[in-house]
Amino acid sequence: MNNMLVDLRIESVGLVKPSIEYELDKSVFEKTGIEKVNIFDDEYTTSKAAICSAKDALKRIDMAASDLDQLIFQSEGMSDYLYMDSSKTIMLEIGGRECGNIYTYDFFRGNNGIIGTIYLINNQLTGNPEINYSMLCSSLLWTYHSKNRQLGDTYLGDGAGAVILSCRSGGSRVLGLSTLSFSQYNKITAFKIGGTVNDINVAGVKAGDFIYDILDYDHLASMREQIVTGSLKVISQALSESNLKMKDIDVIGILGFKKNYNAKILNEILEGQTVIDLLSKNGYLGSVGFFAVINEFLYNEKFSKGDILLLIMIGMDYRIEAMVVRK
Amino acid sequence: MNNMLVDLRIESVGLVKPSIEYELDKSVFEKTGIEKVNIFDDEYTTSKAAICSAKDALKRIDMAASDLDQLIFQSEGMSDYLYMDSSKTIMLEIGGRECGNIYTYDFFRGNNGIIGTIYLINNQLTGNPEINYSMLCSSLLWTYHSKNRQLGDTYLGDGAGAVILSCRSGGSRVLGLSTLSFSQYNKITAFKIGGTVNDINVAGVKAGDFIYDILDYDHLASMREQIVTGSLKVISQALSESNLKMKDIDVIGILGFKKNYNAKILNEILEGQTVIDLLSKNGYLGSVGFFAVINEFLYNEKFSKGDILLLIMIGMDYRIEAMVVRK
Repeated sequence: MNNMLVDLRIESVGLVKPSIEYELDKSVFEKTGIEKVNIFDDEYTTSKAAICSAKDALKRIDMAASDLDQLIFQSEGMSDYLYMDSSKTIMLEIGGRECGNIYTYDFFRGNNGIIGTIYLINNQLTGNPEINYSMLCSSLLWTYHSKNRQLGDTYLGDGAGAVILSCRSGGSRVLGLSTLSFSQYNKITAFKIGGTVNDINVAGVKAGDFIYDILDYDHLASMREQIVTGSLKVISQALSESNLKMKDIDVIGILGFKKNYNAKILNEILEGQTVIDLLSKNGYLGSVGFFAVINEFLYNEKFSKGDILLLIMIGMDYRIEAMVVRK
Repeated sequence: MNNMLVDLRIESVGLVKPSIEYELDKSVFEKTGIEKVNIFDDEYTTSKAAICSAKDALKRIDMAASDLDQLIFQSEGMSDYLYMDSSKTIMLEIGGRECGNIYTYDFFRGNNGIIGTIYLINNQLTGNPEINYSMLCSSLLWTYHSKNRQLGDTYLGDGAGAVILSCRSGGSRVLGLSTLSFSQYNKITAFKIGGTVNDINVAGVKAGDFIYDILDYDHLASMREQIVTGSLKVISQALSESNLKMKDIDVIGILGFKKNYNAKILNEILEGQTVIDLLSKNGYLGSVGFFAVINEFLYNEKFSKGDILLLIMIGMDYRIEAMVVRK
């Protein structure tokens, strides 16, 4: 991926962290490194959480929703209703433009595709002068449609986040992006029933098959063998895109699903940097992890203006992605 | 929407029309104008049909799959598995690039969003010089997850289609695009159960609620009141984007869900043009209708090089879209 980021900026981030803390068994912690996950109460739906995060991002920079020219909602989980148009619902509820020159899209597969989508948004911002401010939003609630929040041997935390991107602004500059796909292992996760391969039926629902789960364990196993080498490759590429060396990085954000992979990767790259690793206190956050790390980096005063973050995302998916941002 | 289409071209179209013909009752025909729909046999899954259409589009211009730089899969229906990554599966199976600089995305909500997505692809092609050829693909199978193919008072046909777009080529030029959203009626269709509002349960599955259906009849009724005026507005805008008058148009393609709306719109605009209206022989085709009309216009010899098509899409959705193309 050559560097097409002419001047991509993060204007603002919004984040909703659910208030309920769900402690996991000690045995789970020993295996996965996850102590607890935060979960939404029953009042929340996917779009309600997304709307809160979108409002939060707008409020932070005192921006009117009507100034947004694009809104992309991306998620690996469920919307309020299956196949409803969440992006339009969010745009409507935050008071954005309803009609006219407004572009809203719903994407599948948040997981690690979130940085790939930022690439797409960068192209939208540079290719279409009508689009000045683009919001990317994601929202995950795992109370329904997960095996008690377990996905393989990781545990899923709830949350919602939003980011406002622009390329003609004074926000934090994105210096480089890099993504790596192992397409040959592209069936790691999905719902076993409810598609055109296996129709949904009462037996399947009773058996609890209508959950987001591992679909192909061979794909998962093959992907895992390449997590460490793949991550190092993606990191090296993101640094090269940014014209930086590892020693120029101040903060490393790592979003993984299991502690031992995170540890191995950090062991290979750390040169004294501060680490943001949300796994033990938040579980595996999927696409929402992206917003959580950027939120921490931009708004925690312990990180200074000018600091540079390298973010690595390794998920229960076949993609590994990295991004470099200067605060 | 100002005209950002610097030089958008349709390079090729692929289409898969299922072989089984499913005749509808005479009473249905009288009410809807739909005689029959074509349906896929049980061998097909969403991705199998999509892969066939993608290969068809490539074959028509003798293009290697490895020359595609982007693939977007967009659908209002179900994938092989819920929340699987169909775009990557299609790219893999047609022999496209697996890794590296390849951009694949899965979008929800095909319906009338397909022309809005062409706008997004146009921005990708103009904003990122790495993307020379972008494929947009859609595939619909309604055997599962529909009420015997009924959606409100229309009937759904199966099918799959793909289009290859470029802005540095010799293909058929897209002269103008226009889209109109009635965001306030954005809950017309979805699945009633299976999201974060209503969990899926045995009773709901037994009751047949896990189907793509009308979610909010008030939204549908309000949208319907505006179909004719909205369509005329979108048509007028698409003509204006193209710097054309209605008399310059040779062919009108209309994709609607009920004969009386189609008739009213045609009655307002027709000035002797040839009409492509697939409703009676194909039913409501959703996003696949787009590929079916373009396929007919570009490859039926009764239309000549230089002919200009105005395509109007009015669906069971809250969007109306139009496009103008010169063969």
